[in-house]
Amino acid sequence: MSYLYEGTDRRQVYVGNIMFGAGQPIIIAGPCAVESEEQLEAGIAPIADKIDMIRGGAFKPRTSPYSFQGLKEEGLKILQKISQKFDLPFVTEVLSPEDVPLVAEYADMLQIGARNMQNFALLTAAGASGKPVLLKRGMSATLKEWLNAAEYILKEGNMDVVLCERGIRSFDASTRNVFDLAGAVLARGQSCLPVIADPSHGTGVRELVCPMIKASLAAGLDGVMVEVHADPDSAASDGQQSLSPEEFLDCLAVIE
Amino acid sequence: MSYLYEGTDRRQVYVGNIMFGAGQPIIIAGPCAVESEEQLEAGIAPIADKIDMIRGGAFKPRTSPYSFQGLKEEGLKILQKISQKFDLPFVTEVLSPEDVPLVAEYADMLQIGARNMQNFALLTAAGASGKPVLLKRGMSATLKEWLNAAEYILKEGNMDVVLCERGIRSFDASTRNVFDLAGAVLARGQSCLPVIADPSHGTGVRELVCPMIKASLAAGLDGVMVEVHADPDSAASDGQQSLSPEEFLDCLAVIE
Amino acid sequence: MSYLYEGTDRRQVYVGNIMFGAGQPIIIAGPCAVESEEQLEAGIAPIADKIDMIRGGAFKPRTSPYSFQGLKEEGLKILQKISQKFDLPFVTEVLSPEDVPLVAEYADMLQIGARNMQNFALLTAAGASGKPVLLKRGMSATLKEWLNAAEYILKEGNMDVVLCERGIRSFDASTRNVFDLAGAVLARGQSCLPVIADPSHGTGVRELVCPMIKASLAAGLDGVMVEVHADPDSAASDGQQSLSPEEFLDCLAVIE
Amino acid sequence: MSYLYEGTDRRQVYVGNIMFGAGQPIIIAGPCAVESEEQLEAGIAPIADKIDMIRGGAFKPRTSPYSFQGLKEEGLKILQKISQKFDLPFVTEVLSPEDVPLVAEYADMLQIGARNMQNFALLTAAGASGKPVLLKRGMSATLKEWLNAAEYILKEGNMDVVLCERGIRSFDASTRNVFDLAGAVLARGQSCLPVIADPSHGTGVRELVCPMIKASLAAGLDGVMVEVHADPDSAASDGQQSLSPEEFLDCLAVIE
Repeated sequence: MSYLYEGTDRRQVYVGNIMFGAGQPIIIAGPCAVESEEQLEAGIAPIADKIDMIRGGAFKPRTSPYSFQGLKEEGLKILQKISQKFDLPFVTEVLSPEDVPLVAEYADMLQIGARNMQNFALLTAAGASGKPVLLKRGMSATLKEWLNAAEYILKEGNMDVVLCERGIRSFDASTRNVFDLAGAVLARGQSCLPVIADPSHGTGVRELVCPMIKASLAAGLDGVMVEVHADPDSAASDGQQSLSPEEFLDCLAVIE
Repeated sequence: MSYLYEGTDRRQVYVGNIMFGAGQPIIIAGPCAVESEEQLEAGIAPIADKIDMIRGGAFKPRTSPYSFQGLKEEGLKILQKISQKFDLPFVTEVLSPEDVPLVAEYADMLQIGARNMQNFALLTAAGASGKPVLLKRGMSATLKEWLNAAEYILKEGNMDVVLCERGIRSFDASTRNVFDLAGAVLARGQSCLPVIADPSHGTGVRELVCPMIKASLAAGLDGVMVEVHADPDSAASDGQQSLSPEEFLDCLAVIE
Repeated sequence: MSYLYEGTDRRQVYVGNIMFGAGQPIIIAGPCAVESEEQLEAGIAPIADKIDMIRGGAFKPRTSPYSFQGLKEEGLKILQKISQKFDLPFVTEVLSPEDVPLVAEYADMLQIGARNMQNFALLTAAGASGKPVLLKRGMSATLKEWLNAAEYILKEGNMDVVLCERGIRSFDASTRNVFDLAGAVLARGQSCLPVIADPSHGTGVRELVCPMIKASLAAGLDGVMVEVHADPDSAASDGQQSLSPEEFLDCLAVIE
Repeated sequence: MSYLYEGTDRRQVYVGNIMFGAGQPIIIAGPCAVESEEQLEAGIAPIADKIDMIRGGAFKPRTSPYSFQGLKEEGLKILQKISQKFDLPFVTEVLSPEDVPLVAEYADMLQIGARNMQNFALLTAAGASGKPVLLKRGMSATLKEWLNAAEYILKEGNMDVVLCERGIRSFDASTRNVFDLAGAVLARGQSCLPVIADPSHGTGVRELVCPMIKASLAAGLDGVMVEVHADPDSAASDGQQSLSPEEFLDCLAVIE
């Protein structure tokens, strides 16, 4: 039994007025973490008419308990305000089942991150929320495990699931992760779900982000999610893999 | 800041009347999943006077939502009954923050599994429960990430944390995981916490379990956790890596 | 000291009348192993006017000593004949320093395979041959190791080196290798050498080859090398990752 | 067809007057690289009556062509002199088929290193030399590939092959390699060949070497090979994983 393969049609997932899986790639951009309304607006304003959706973290999963953990509900409010200002839906990560109702109240789409790909209680809660879910691949998850994790959401009757490749662990520290584009294409072929890629986390290296955006779209994925920050060098997290608005616009210009 | 390194003394962790880190290796054994009272008792009775603690899963994290998910509270009751019968404390996995109070009501020690090593809400809830916690290493967690995960528990004022190596992902399908014994020894040296090993999950291959029990103890770890099942070939999960009571006793006989 | 970074100009490598690194991507295609003149011609004839160069193995590195090891000199003769017939240069693998003179007598470009990336005697012999060299990345080589392997060739005064990504080892058996396209782009940025990709070995899965050809070119690599076989299902090796001439032409048609 | 499994008996491999696979673990020690007669003697003299065999590199495989490549024939002469002085056979690495006759003239056992595990011409030449061969596992070789590499030697009629685990590549930079002790035990079970371990390269961390010597012997391997250097902090290579003679003797004292 599986909801991953429904006849021959691919699933289309609506988030607000945009649609994943309809042929037109969806472009999601924004900062790793929401730091303030000013920071978020400064990053989004220059790119707002070139993107389909905003990303930004309010609840941040951090390796150390002493690192910045995100603005939480305040961050959600900022995201909502900027989302409304630019008329763009937003996706943000949720870390725990008990936070699902709060995040679902604000966000257009719930993100489940790599560390939580097999947090089955969270998958179930996100499924039951009725909100579209963006499910990132775990750092060392096989495709089968990734698709089975999606199944936990689908099983709750929530068919609005989009998969997101974000790099896997490997032996070479030259890049933060190995961007498994072929794996993402294969996961797309093995399910009916839209699959996008996050080349920012997927590589962890600023100069690789634009080439991997191009590669992801050329390979037929349904979109990309990119870290764009008004001032990458001062970002609270992940600055080394974030593009400035100018770099991001330059990259998009080449693709179109 | 870190609670991982407190002066020069190693931490000793009491669970019931046993003590991790006191020089005498702790032997934990039991089935992967609790299937019934009869099954649990049949597996534990023959080995009860050779082990220090019982293990058994009541809440099971399964890759597929359609696999057996454990007996849940009924499993906890069975574990408690057998634990009392043989006067041995037991450890069992908890999968979600909302289940922590229930599991803590029955179990002597809470296990956080590999998939949840960076489930920060769960780490925090387990920390706040006041119960000793057995923290398994994630499938592709670095030592630094593992120790930082422990820090999430310690930060709640709960110093009773034991680390457990259970194998990491690699490229060779000959074994289910690569048993990183050297990594476990290094994690022990980089913290004040006791470190044990689970050679059953760590290798996934029955004939490697006994050699890796011996190796773990020879390398100076503080104990081992072993899957022992009354009838491995009929086990509901992980039979291929479980020892029968006889195989387990034969192994222990060689060590003593 | 290093010959990898010569001023700001990127190196261009001539092989016969074609040039790697001159902006126009180079397309190399042919069977994994040369099996007979008929087989090679049947695979090349339909695609000859769409490709820049022929590939084909005469000396085959095989995991088992009992597998087909290639036609050796007879294979070189067949490659030369077909090469002349279609006026396309060819690249073929050399496995040992003592075979370098023989292979160099026939081939336009010497390939050093993944298993031999740190076979330093072979790198030195290939460097000393004066022939252009295609250096594949080792199965678990870091970028630094790969570039240092190139340095062994360059140090012999042979500047005609092209790097070739062919996938790295990882934990997921869904694909034969993980195609590290971002790593290839980064290696290109860290050296002056042209870098191409082999999506056939890089993925090991037929339906991923065309998406990864597109991705490689979109990401700015200097070319691709593709396994094309007249009848993939009857190929002596690697049929599951080979395209038929028709599939290959269909893929190229979409790119142009 | 395979020479790896000959009836039910395990193979015993003689090197000089010692025997691998006869129940008594073989202890091999010496410096990573031979730097001078004085250095070699200073490292071996204090431990000579506790070891069975000397190791030392005369031909060194180095990632960079600009690193120290070993003393070559001069190193072989030094090894032979010290070997005779202490009446201990020695093993040393050979890097290329053309060096096999020279190395075989001096050495009691030829070592094929991890980088050359699938250098099939070298395997064949070593097989044909008639000398015992120590075959290290490749950095990302599966057990099947490792055993098949041994088969290339056995096929030449040379049954005197000993396998050596030396760590595999993984994602965690805490250790140089992941020491796959369980994999070594499994390879031993899947063949008739003796298997030893090299915990120096296997971990790359000095304080892990002694625990992994103990673990390897407890797990039933046929011996260990350890880097011991008269003055590890001044070693030309791999000092951070070498033991001093005193540290090595302390470790052996605990085992006996």
